[in-house]
Amino acid sequence: MFGKSTYTKRRKTLKEKVGKGLILLLGNNESAMNYADNTYHFRQNSTFLYYFGINHPGLAALIDIDNDTETIFGDDYTIDDIVWMGPQPTIAERAEKCGVSRVKPLTELQDALGKAGTTGQMLHFLPLYRPENKIKLLELAGVSPKEIGERFSLELVKAVVSQREIKTAEELVRINQAVDVSVDMHMEAMKFARPGMSEAEVAAEIHKVALAAGGNISFPIIATINGQTLHNHYHGNTIKEGDLFLVDAGYENEMCYAGDLSSTFPVSKKFTSEQKEIYGITLAAHQAAVDALGFLKPFREAHLAACSAIFDGMKSMGFTKGNTADAVEAGAHALFFPCGTGHMMGLDVHDMEDLGEVWVGYDGQPKSTQFGLKSLRLAKPLQAGHVFTIEPGIYFIPELIDLWSGQGKFKDFIHWDKVKTYRNFGGIRNEEDFVMTENGAQLLGKPKPKTMPEVEALRG
Amino acid sequence: MFGKSTYTKRRKTLKEKVGKGLILLLGNNESAMNYADNTYHFRQNSTFLYYFGINHPGLAALIDIDNDTETIFGDDYTIDDIVWMGPQPTIAERAEKCGVSRVKPLTELQDALGKAGTTGQMLHFLPLYRPENKIKLLELAGVSPKEIGERFSLELVKAVVSQREIKTAEELVRINQAVDVSVDMHMEAMKFARPGMSEAEVAAEIHKVALAAGGNISFPIIATINGQTLHNHYHGNTIKEGDLFLVDAGYENEMCYAGDLSSTFPVSKKFTSEQKEIYGITLAAHQAAVDALGFLKPFREAHLAACSAIFDGMKSMGFTKGNTADAVEAGAHALFFPCGTGHMMGLDVHDMEDLGEVWVGYDGQPKSTQFGLKSLRLAKPLQAGHVFTIEPGIYFIPELIDLWSGQGKFKDFIHWDKVKTYRNFGGIRNEEDFVMTENGAQLLGKPKPKTMPEVEALRG
Repeated sequence: MFGKSTYTKRRKTLKEKVGKGLILLLGNNESAMNYADNTYHFRQNSTFLYYFGINHPGLAALIDIDNDTETIFGDDYTIDDIVWMGPQPTIAERAEKCGVSRVKPLTELQDALGKAGTTGQMLHFLPLYRPENKIKLLELAGVSPKEIGERFSLELVKAVVSQREIKTAEELVRINQAVDVSVDMHMEAMKFARPGMSEAEVAAEIHKVALAAGGNISFPIIATINGQTLHNHYHGNTIKEGDLFLVDAGYENEMCYAGDLSSTFPVSKKFTSEQKEIYGITLAAHQAAVDALGFLKPFREAHLAACSAIFDGMKSMGFTKGNTADAVEAGAHALFFPCGTGHMMGLDVHDMEDLGEVWVGYDGQPKSTQFGLKSLRLAKPLQAGHVFTIEPGIYFIPELIDLWSGQGKFKDFIHWDKVKTYRNFGGIRNEEDFVMTENGAQLLGKPKPKTMPEVEALRG
Repeated sequence: MFGKSTYTKRRKTLKEKVGKGLILLLGNNESAMNYADNTYHFRQNSTFLYYFGINHPGLAALIDIDNDTETIFGDDYTIDDIVWMGPQPTIAERAEKCGVSRVKPLTELQDALGKAGTTGQMLHFLPLYRPENKIKLLELAGVSPKEIGERFSLELVKAVVSQREIKTAEELVRINQAVDVSVDMHMEAMKFARPGMSEAEVAAEIHKVALAAGGNISFPIIATINGQTLHNHYHGNTIKEGDLFLVDAGYENEMCYAGDLSSTFPVSKKFTSEQKEIYGITLAAHQAAVDALGFLKPFREAHLAACSAIFDGMKSMGFTKGNTADAVEAGAHALFFPCGTGHMMGLDVHDMEDLGEVWVGYDGQPKSTQFGLKSLRLAKPLQAGHVFTIEPGIYFIPELIDLWSGQGKFKDFIHWDKVKTYRNFGGIRNEEDFVMTENGAQLLGKPKPKTMPEVEALRG
């Protein structure tokens, strides 16, 4: 974790921003796989980590702004536990490291909340994504799971987002490290994958690199010959000569900072000429997005630059036609690129997605409802310290091609006959991570092979 | 999954055993790591898998015994989902494969339960370990999370245990396969580990073998130079010459059958003479437990045979003294072996632990409260088709040595001065999986290197 003063300052700022009341921050519990004691790897709540840095299950924290107290609630291990688990720091020792001196057993949390209720203090809590925390809130404060969406504190959400979205120098060190290991994961995949392997074998090799570095994967690995399927965690196919292989994978380090990268490479040693053409367009779109990044410039512009570059590139190959600006405004490019160019990244790979994309990516402004643009997670002007991904891609999605061509959609912008000849082409995406500074965007982590010669060199 | 008739027959038997009422079986949902859409790998509820075989999140099933209907509740994907996820079978198609023809949307489950309530049908549900399912039960049937422990159906628990504990020939094929891959995981660790590596690197290599085989780990991997810490998932140490390395890891295949094995090997190419002596005692205890296994014989006898062998072996080395039977009855052996010799295994690595150990391992009889014996998960007579582990070990637990020697415990049985000279020795365990037959116990899976020459041969 960071030094004590980091957490003390973060909480001081939070208290100033929220102004008054009682802030309840729930840490995560262990998550059961198939019975209570057989658990997935522990993942702490990111906001709890941000303000307290304690990567340990079963904790809750109460920040009483009105009375200026901070308390961590949690139960120490018994001697029986220690015989089974080895020596463990106490909750008080853990709390001391983040500058919190008040520690109480979990059973006292309900009393503390009850007392606050009788004095009419306002209780601030965040939207909850973990069911165990929904149960805690029900039992502690009588808020049912269905009511959380209406009763969470928007003031608290806005305050947390405004702090967590600006990454400090010490955070950037950790994010750079996470991206570096993410690069290692991708380079290993490019060197390792061979025709005849299963996708699972390649995914396992990528996963191994993350675990061996002492952390974990920051999200479920995509490692597939069906890159056109955007949410694809199936690893059952055998990979063969001529296939494209798409990897989307990232590392989460011991402090839970994430990296998030994508690569696409040929299963054969070389790209085919058709693959080269489409790959080239994705690279041009990638560069167009990067070129459109600017300090205080809306990220939406980078997204639209990528959309236009994809539409233009596809026009040069005879897939599309007509005026590019009109096509992008109408959403025709989304046939090939139905998702967004990037998202915030930090302690979460989609940073603070639990707090609401409209606050993290849109400053509270409404999102577009148009297919394609509605999937853009980040649109607002970029401040110094914003960390985000750039990941335009081109996908031939058979189901979407069939749906839209059957509906007679976008006849003025799409050459459907040509598109159908590429129905089984697959998908291509590259993805990199950046931080905005007052002098423009900077790449995070060491460079990952991206040009076709660089990628082919690793396939040799 | 198995053929349709397997599941139909299992449900028929369940209905006959429970007799009347309405059985609610909840499948698991996806589990969020750090926000709702960033999930751990999906793990279906094992009992749901056993009766329906559908490895898919968000389902519930209602078996109405009185009206002889079986219904699966779940929501199909939309075309929007399919664009992102690729083509997916419908719930009806999934249900058809397990012989269920009635499929309804999730929203109708509450009505179905409400209707049953008005006709006074008895609702049977199982103890729940997933918080999302506790919330479902609250919303569907008004049973609060705290009430589940009193209101679950013991008849249903007993019926499910009586079916799931007897593994059929087709299940044993899958369990053997899971154990075979588990053996591969251990052999890879023995070949791979080298002085200077981190524990995490070895754990990652083991994990990779499981993922590459297309399944997953059946429980969090233990890969440690501190084998004396029984629940140890810390992988931060560097391993060095002279250390003992303990691995406890197993494979869970695509049908979710588990393997569970342990190995202990020297980080150096050879065991030291001290390590050889203790290792030899664990092997003798292992063999004593296996020799004590018998059709319809209580597993407790195998456990006590292992305890005695450990106490005897430690006596021959001067760690213990006195009458072995008295010492084991008093629990003195538990200084070195504070846990149990084995547990049931199947769709869960600790099979059906969610349903209650007292039913799975003790036929409802009370467990001992003595330190050591209270941790034995399985004691009852073994029937043909029972699948279980054998895993005695010897551990020098500094915290326990300090505690008991400080309390002056077991002075008649323990030479504390000698024990203290081994305070930092570590721990040794081997573990294998067996099935009971009418002709005695049979080893599951291919043999794993276990003798010292076999282990050293892999360390070459």
